[in-house]
Amino acid sequence: MTSSLLPELQPAHLREVGIDSATVYQGHFLHAVRDTVVLPDGSRALREYIKHPGAVMVVPLLDDGRVIVERQYRYPLQRALIEFPAGKIDPGEDRLACARRELREETGYTAREWARAGVLHPVLAYADEFIEIWFARGLRLGERALDAGEFLDVLAVTPAELLAACRDGVLTDAKTLTGLLWLQNWRAGAWPLDWREVEAAAAPVAAQG
Amino acid sequence: MTSSLLPELQPAHLREVGIDSATVYQGHFLHAVRDTVVLPDGSRALREYIKHPGAVMVVPLLDDGRVIVERQYRYPLQRALIEFPAGKIDPGEDRLACARRELREETGYTAREWARAGVLHPVLAYADEFIEIWFARGLRLGERALDAGEFLDVLAVTPAELLAACRDGVLTDAKTLTGLLWLQNWRAGAWPLDWREVEAAAAPVAAQG
Repeated sequence: MTSSLLPELQPAHLREVGIDSATVYQGHFLHAVRDTVVLPDGSRALREYIKHPGAVMVVPLLDDGRVIVERQYRYPLQRALIEFPAGKIDPGEDRLACARRELREETGYTAREWARAGVLHPVLAYADEFIEIWFARGLRLGERALDAGEFLDVLAVTPAELLAACRDGVLTDAKTLTGLLWLQNWRAGAWPLDWREVEAAAAPVAAQG
Repeated sequence: MTSSLLPELQPAHLREVGIDSATVYQGHFLHAVRDTVVLPDGSRALREYIKHPGAVMVVPLLDDGRVIVERQYRYPLQRALIEFPAGKIDPGEDRLACARRELREETGYTAREWARAGVLHPVLAYADEFIEIWFARGLRLGERALDAGEFLDVLAVTPAELLAACRDGVLTDAKTLTGLLWLQNWRAGAWPLDWREVEAAAAPVAAQG
């Protein structure tokens, strides 16, 4: 047992090496693959997992101290849950552009300032999905533009309400709880955010030439 | 927009109702289904997701203030990551029994006291998985009993090291970050834990009669 987690994060004695890969299911939404891997002791094993393009999540801060969350029915869990706005990255899409698009489409808000907090991995045992975490402030409310078949409520709540909802078992979405960890530590002055102003236009236009 | 997230958490205007379900992939590890659902506006949609038996995660507290984490290679992400000990619930297994088993098998530790903190949902868009969060203290080190083909390092680190690793982008596992949110708020006296002593024997034996 060692006492620090930081040095040598990719030790050779844990590594698994893929030697083949096949798609085992290609649905409308899910893409599952099964790879054969060589384990550290030379034996072989199968690894089945979901291929995912990655996603972004936004922690939207209102000027009055409240934050914007959504309530959305999540069919696999047979209930509606509270979440920060999030969505999949389109092919070739810039991550900040994706964050701005998802916030605007799902909640109607645009933001003057953005800061990238970090990244999380929701389910490392069976998906390659990452979720990049962005904070947004200087919010202005416009029109929502939900996808067809998308239904969700938009709520403005205090960080204290969200933390109490986690403590009481009402808020259980892991990405949102990770956003709360960031929010709590940023508000306490413990973790920094590097804010940048963005143009009001949703889609930046590259200069010609 | 409303200002509180707590009342009326299951509103009818968001509900999706399943009308049929079929297994679309049954692998060694993954079980994927595709359901047809009726949306709130009466239209139909498909929902593909992973069926999962549920899991437990343990936040193991050493007497000296450090916590136990693991470093494990996660093939879908092609890297080793830092995590709290966790594992799937066996069919019919009690959740605390599962927590005790996973802690002992993966790290070698047994614990005198246990407290259930809450539950998290890692990936509500495409899995029904839940992870129940347990805290353990009064740790004693014994022998590990890893599954065949399981390789992982066991580390003892301070909560401050873990929080810094999150801030710096080294710790990215969402379940572990949720455990850290609990750890931070419990240590601050903000969130309570209801500790109970357990018997030293790993498998409790029911009284006859």
